[in-house]
Amino acid sequence: MVALTSFIDVASDSHFPLQNLPFGVFKPDAQTAPRIGVAIGDLVLDLQVIAEHGLLTGPELRDHKIVFAQSSLNAFLALGQSAWREARTTVMQLLCADEATLRDNKKLRAQALHRQDQVSMLLPVTVRGYTDFYSSKEHATNLGKMFRGSDNALMPNWLHMPIGYDGRASSIVVSGTDFARPCGQIMPPNADNPIFSASKRLDAELEVGFIVGSNSKLGEPISTQAAPQHIFGVVLLNDWSARDIQKWEYQPLGPFLGKNFCTSISPWVVTLDALEPFRVSGPKQQPQPLPYLQCEQAWNFNLQLQMLLKTATMTQPDTVATTNFRQVYWNFCQQVAHHTINGCNLRTGDIFASGTVSGDQPGSYGSFIELCWGGKQPLTLSNGETRTFLEDGDSVTITGWCQGDNYRIGFGEVTGTVLPALSK
Amino acid sequence: MVALTSFIDVASDSHFPLQNLPFGVFKPDAQTAPRIGVAIGDLVLDLQVIAEHGLLTGPELRDHKIVFAQSSLNAFLALGQSAWREARTTVMQLLCADEATLRDNKKLRAQALHRQDQVSMLLPVTVRGYTDFYSSKEHATNLGKMFRGSDNALMPNWLHMPIGYDGRASSIVVSGTDFARPCGQIMPPNADNPIFSASKRLDAELEVGFIVGSNSKLGEPISTQAAPQHIFGVVLLNDWSARDIQKWEYQPLGPFLGKNFCTSISPWVVTLDALEPFRVSGPKQQPQPLPYLQCEQAWNFNLQLQMLLKTATMTQPDTVATTNFRQVYWNFCQQVAHHTINGCNLRTGDIFASGTVSGDQPGSYGSFIELCWGGKQPLTLSNGETRTFLEDGDSVTITGWCQGDNYRIGFGEVTGTVLPALSK
Repeated sequence: MVALTSFIDVASDSHFPLQNLPFGVFKPDAQTAPRIGVAIGDLVLDLQVIAEHGLLTGPELRDHKIVFAQSSLNAFLALGQSAWREARTTVMQLLCADEATLRDNKKLRAQALHRQDQVSMLLPVTVRGYTDFYSSKEHATNLGKMFRGSDNALMPNWLHMPIGYDGRASSIVVSGTDFARPCGQIMPPNADNPIFSASKRLDAELEVGFIVGSNSKLGEPISTQAAPQHIFGVVLLNDWSARDIQKWEYQPLGPFLGKNFCTSISPWVVTLDALEPFRVSGPKQQPQPLPYLQCEQAWNFNLQLQMLLKTATMTQPDTVATTNFRQVYWNFCQQVAHHTINGCNLRTGDIFASGTVSGDQPGSYGSFIELCWGGKQPLTLSNGETRTFLEDGDSVTITGWCQGDNYRIGFGEVTGTVLPALSK
Repeated sequence: MVALTSFIDVASDSHFPLQNLPFGVFKPDAQTAPRIGVAIGDLVLDLQVIAEHGLLTGPELRDHKIVFAQSSLNAFLALGQSAWREARTTVMQLLCADEATLRDNKKLRAQALHRQDQVSMLLPVTVRGYTDFYSSKEHATNLGKMFRGSDNALMPNWLHMPIGYDGRASSIVVSGTDFARPCGQIMPPNADNPIFSASKRLDAELEVGFIVGSNSKLGEPISTQAAPQHIFGVVLLNDWSARDIQKWEYQPLGPFLGKNFCTSISPWVVTLDALEPFRVSGPKQQPQPLPYLQCEQAWNFNLQLQMLLKTATMTQPDTVATTNFRQVYWNFCQQVAHHTINGCNLRTGDIFASGTVSGDQPGSYGSFIELCWGGKQPLTLSNGETRTFLEDGDSVTITGWCQGDNYRIGFGEVTGTVLPALSK
């Protein structure tokens, strides 16, 4: 492959080299309307400006330049995979070191390129449905042990299908949105009756999510082979969880208020095409899944992930978990095939999340409940503080990247800070 | 109260007298764009036409007549409770027997009034979130007995909170939309491994749902007292369920593919104001709920409900269940207060469903799994056929009304027919 370089300086550890080009929604300043952008190095390329200057004129996009002047990616995504590819290819060409159109037009560069640290990133999509899976075997086993004991850790169905549930779309927020510690019902140990309280076991969950680009029709299953054409791209996701609320409420209908107070996602959507060089096979699946779940191609990703914690007194965060997405048991295509096998339809703007990504070693667990083993093994942080669950003022950041030769396909980060409960 | 009569003939058993005036979305014919309408007797009043003629000119609506020329109620609902009330009051006045404006304008009547049997009803809202509760104690007890045995029938949390889960919004359809029997994983009795199959235990669930009109903010709970101002109106809902798929998948994260292949709602949204005369107290709640769930006012409804079954060989349906919404344990206001106590936000177009409404007698059970007691007691129909679960070609209809003195506040109906599975 010819080395891809841009006329824009991109550090070798930047998450956003020319090979990446993730899409997002941003506001250049408080007075200007939101629009679609692409990250390149420390800058954002403003696609509304680029489209207005007649530089997105391929057959899929030339009649649709309005899709870049929107407050969400949805209209762009609804155009389908050919349009996504045309947009990314066109932008890649425009940013290449040997392409003069933008490089040598100082006025256009001033209009179309913004510094990332000077713009506001918005939620990239209007989220339609949100489905949260539970696809890491290590995580499901750990949680099962703590919630139900070792004998029932992994439910009998778990190895046969990607277990998941419908989550709440309304409370999905973009990175940087802080939230108040949730209140609700908790059943204290050995009590006869529940109490009303702010959650005392507030947790984070390191997850990877993908965004559905193309609708499907009600009643029409999508095969594992056809699944990728419905997937636009990938984000990092923090599924904040109140373990005490969850524990008391979750039977028999599953997680509800313990999860749906806030879910944070990263602002830049990394396309499947950018991730293509990092596709790897997942763990061997034994027992063999039913035919509708079989997936011959490699659809896991060699994606390094980290979770960082910064307490109110810290100046730099600690890395509390390091893991990799490649070992997740059920992949995106299997999740799509399972979700639609009953005829359930997908919509542009749906988010599918992986569930917490945990490895097989304690330092690779993607949630605090696993890292502190249900509160029994507090973490000691670099400044001497200890943590089991999250305290007010704690900030959690998830970041991740695929490491190539001298470049990274990065996801930026998703971060959020716990504010005090509104009432206790 | 002065007798309310319209210049339009309304039979005493009509669901849509002048006291009701439910809102819906319809297409007058195949060539004409969808718009908002109000049901009156056997007719639909076209609010797009009414607004264009300058007849919706109160302070809340005069700058927003465009909201009636839409394919969903969402823009109208987003205007808030004062606008909903102004619209209904204005329409009521316009349709009164002693009001000449429309009554004596033959040309306008021809434009603005359509026969219900000649228009197509569409899904009334773009559904944002869908939350399904489990608020009938009788139903929860019956299902619990069948899924977990008598000892664990009602979970310990059930009497302390309105148990619910986030459902799938994408597969909510309007009455009259038929659907294919879902396929999926089933674990046969005494088998070692699941099989792939069309569901053999396809069920219907008689539910009542309400539609959220006004957004709330993330992080801000809504009290039981403030809840009604967020509720626009009420529909009937059939939460079709594949019991065999559900049973195998639902632990630990709750119902998923067993429920999200299709959920049907009635097209006419009956406003809270129309239901006001039928508010009644619900069952005494013991133990007393935590303060955030206490609701001093009566927010149950004396709403008679029926479920009807018409098999492929029948010419008239049988009534298989007759029940009443008044005995449901957790009311709308408690559901709203619970859903938001953790800071979860509501959005215009959310639907909250009650869960199956069952009474305490077998003929009052709102699902087939209860009516045939898990398949053990088949129903014998009037034509001699028997049913446990639904067969291909079966149509299920749910209807309901509040009975006043010589008038009914009715909901019309929600109906759907089971088509054969696409693959088996």
